[in-house]
Amino acid sequence: MSKIITLITDFRTSDGYMGAIFGVIKSINMNLEIITIASNIPPADIRKASRALANSYRFYPQGTIHMVVVDPTVGPLRRALIIDDGRYLFLGPDNGVLTPVLKNNPDCNCYDVKNPKYQLVSASETFHGRDLFAPVAAYLSLGIPPDEFGPPITDPLLIEDPQPEIMGKNIIGKVIDIDAFGNLVTNVPAEMIPENPIITVCGRKIEGLSKSYADVQEKQPLAYIGSSGTLEIAINRGNAANYFGAFIFEDLKISDGGKR
Amino acid sequence: MSKIITLITDFRTSDGYMGAIFGVIKSINMNLEIITIASNIPPADIRKASRALANSYRFYPQGTIHMVVVDPTVGPLRRALIIDDGRYLFLGPDNGVLTPVLKNNPDCNCYDVKNPKYQLVSASETFHGRDLFAPVAAYLSLGIPPDEFGPPITDPLLIEDPQPEIMGKNIIGKVIDIDAFGNLVTNVPAEMIPENPIITVCGRKIEGLSKSYADVQEKQPLAYIGSSGTLEIAINRGNAANYFGAFIFEDLKISDGGKR
Amino acid sequence: MSKIITLITDFRTSDGYMGAIFGVIKSINMNLEIITIASNIPPADIRKASRALANSYRFYPQGTIHMVVVDPTVGPLRRALIIDDGRYLFLGPDNGVLTPVLKNNPDCNCYDVKNPKYQLVSASETFHGRDLFAPVAAYLSLGIPPDEFGPPITDPLLIEDPQPEIMGKNIIGKVIDIDAFGNLVTNVPAEMIPENPIITVCGRKIEGLSKSYADVQEKQPLAYIGSSGTLEIAINRGNAANYFGAFIFEDLKISDGGKR
Repeated sequence: MSKIITLITDFRTSDGYMGAIFGVIKSINMNLEIITIASNIPPADIRKASRALANSYRFYPQGTIHMVVVDPTVGPLRRALIIDDGRYLFLGPDNGVLTPVLKNNPDCNCYDVKNPKYQLVSASETFHGRDLFAPVAAYLSLGIPPDEFGPPITDPLLIEDPQPEIMGKNIIGKVIDIDAFGNLVTNVPAEMIPENPIITVCGRKIEGLSKSYADVQEKQPLAYIGSSGTLEIAINRGNAANYFGAFIFEDLKISDGGKR
Repeated sequence: MSKIITLITDFRTSDGYMGAIFGVIKSINMNLEIITIASNIPPADIRKASRALANSYRFYPQGTIHMVVVDPTVGPLRRALIIDDGRYLFLGPDNGVLTPVLKNNPDCNCYDVKNPKYQLVSASETFHGRDLFAPVAAYLSLGIPPDEFGPPITDPLLIEDPQPEIMGKNIIGKVIDIDAFGNLVTNVPAEMIPENPIITVCGRKIEGLSKSYADVQEKQPLAYIGSSGTLEIAINRGNAANYFGAFIFEDLKISDGGKR
Repeated sequence: MSKIITLITDFRTSDGYMGAIFGVIKSINMNLEIITIASNIPPADIRKASRALANSYRFYPQGTIHMVVVDPTVGPLRRALIIDDGRYLFLGPDNGVLTPVLKNNPDCNCYDVKNPKYQLVSASETFHGRDLFAPVAAYLSLGIPPDEFGPPITDPLLIEDPQPEIMGKNIIGKVIDIDAFGNLVTNVPAEMIPENPIITVCGRKIEGLSKSYADVQEKQPLAYIGSSGTLEIAINRGNAANYFGAFIFEDLKISDGGKR
C-alpha cells in the first residue's frame, strides 16, 4: 500500500525550494504520493500553518505522514519532532506548529529527531525542509519506526490559543484566523452559542445565526457555524475582514437575544 | 486503470481548505490521482473558473472527472450538478460555471446531486467543496453511476457569453478573458477574421495578424489566433491589459484591411 | 518503473494553462507522475526559472524528465531543446534557461526538437508548453530516444552569470537571486570566503559568518553559506531585500577581517 506525505509550508511556488523537497523524498521512496496541503503561508507564520494543519489533517487516510515546514527558528538549537498520534505521523519543527495535534490527543508519542543517518549532509543549517524533514518523512514512509530517529521526549513546545471567556451574561471570543476570502474564524465553539445570539464585532451587531451565505442579502454580514465547528463571520459575496476592519485576535462579544 | 480527478477552485493555497478536499477524496479512493488545474481563481469569479475549465478539460484522458469548486451561492438552495458528456464527468455547483461543457455538447446528461449517502455530515452548509463535491467525485471514481447520486435534470443554469456581432463591414467583439500575462483573449473565432484585419481596441489600431510574439518589436502590440482558437491581443514581452488600459468585456472592432 | 516529469513555469495557477499541459501529458502516458517544481515565476523571467532549476534538479531520481516552460521568445524561430546529461533529460526553449545544466556538465548531448510527429497541431504558435513541450516530455517518458525528436546541436544558448571578482584584497560579488523570504543569494562560493569576512552591501557592514538565523538577534542581519553553497545574506525573522534596499545584481564587497 503506497503512502501519502503531505506538506504545509511557507515556501513560495516560485523559488524551486519546494521542488528540492519533493525530489529528495522521491529519491528515497518512489512509491508514495506527495500532496501539498498548503504553500505560500505568510513567511514564518506558525499560527497560520497550524490552522492549515488543523483544517485538514484528520481527513486523510490512516498512515498518512503530515510534514510542516514553517521554521523561522531553524538551526542547531531548535529540535525537530516526530509525533505519533496512533493514526498519523507528524513531522515538523518544535516551535509550536504541531500544537493542534497535541491538543486533540494528549497521548501522542513525541520523538526528537537526532539520528544523522537519516539526514542529508549540508554545509548549511538553513534548509531543514530539504536536508532533514524531507529525508526523515521519506524514511518514515518506508516503515522505519519513529524511535529509530531519536529519543522520546515529553515536552514539545505548545502554543496556547486564546480561549473564549464568559463575562456576566456575555461570551467574549476572538478572531483566530482570517481566511483568503476575508471570513473571520473565531474561537467560539457551536456548543457555547445561544439559540439567538447577538454578536458584536468592531462596534457592529449581527443578530441570529445563518445556515449559509445566501441567507442574507448580497454585501450583508452574517454569522454561522463554520466548517471547523466554531462561529464564523462573513459577508455574502464580500470580504468581512475589510468590511469590519477586523484583524487577527480581534475581540467579539456574544450575548443572548432570547427566544426567537 | 486508475482515474484522474481534476480541481478548479477559488481556494487559495494558504488556508488548508484544498488540503481537506484532497484528504476526503484519498480517504475514499487511494487509487486515483488528483491534479489541480487551477487554484487561486479570484474569489467567487465564476467566469474565470469557467475559462480555466474551457482552456483545459478536453486535453485529459477519457474518464477523467473534472470538479469545479467556485461557489459564491453555496447553500441548501443551490443545486450541485453531475454532467456526463460521454467522455468525461463534471461536478460543480449549478451556478453556470459548467457552461462551456454544456455549450460544446448539448446532449450532455445532467443530474441533481441529492443522495445524502455520498456526502459528509457537517454542522455547516458553507464548505460543499469538502462535504459534498469531494466525496461525490471520489465515489464517481469508484464507478458509482451518476444517476445513483440524484435525479436527472434538464435545466442547468447557463451563463450566456457575449457573442461577436457583425455591424456593416465591421465585426464588434469583446475581451472575454485577461490572462496572468495581461494578454487579451477575445470572443472572435479565427473563421470570422479577414485575411488582413485592422483591429481597434481602446482607441488604438493593430494591423494584420501575427503568428507569434516575436513577429513584432519588443513592447509593441500584436494580434494573433490564440491557443483557444480565437483572436488574442498581446504585447511582445509586455502586458497588453496595462498597455491598452483594457478591462474585461472591453469592445474591439475588426475591419477588413483588404489584400496584402 | 514509472517516471517523473517536473515542470518549472511562469504560468499562474489561475488560468488553466498548466492544467492543459498536465492533461496533454497524462493523455499520452498515464503511468507517470507530474511534479510542479515551480510555478508563478515572474512573467518571462528566464533568470529566475534558471535558479529554480539549479535549486532543485539534482535532488530527483535518475531518469527524471525536467521541463521548463518560460518562453518569452516562443515562435517558429526559437529552437526547442532536449538536453541529456547522462542522468536526467531536460526539455525547454533555447533561450538560456537550461544554462545551469550545461555549466554543470559540458558533456551534455543537445537536440533540436523538430519532428512534428511528436507535437500537437495547433492554429497558434503561442502555446508551446501545451503543443510542443508537453507531448515531447510525455513521449520521452515512454522511452522514445532523444535523437528521434530532432538532430543533435552543439550551440545551445548560454546565459553568462556574473562571476565574483578579486580586486586587491577584496572580493566583489553580486546578488544573483532574491528569494520569496527576501534573502539575498550571492554568486560567491563558500571556498572563496575568508574565515572571518567583513561583508559590505548597500553601505552596511556584516561581520563574520553565522551558521543559522538564530545566531543573531531578531531583525538583525547575518551572512551565512546558503543551501546552494554560496554566500547568502538574511535578516533573522525579517526581509533582507527590504532592509538593505537591495536589488538583483547588487554588488557586495567581502574583505578579510583576520583571525577571530
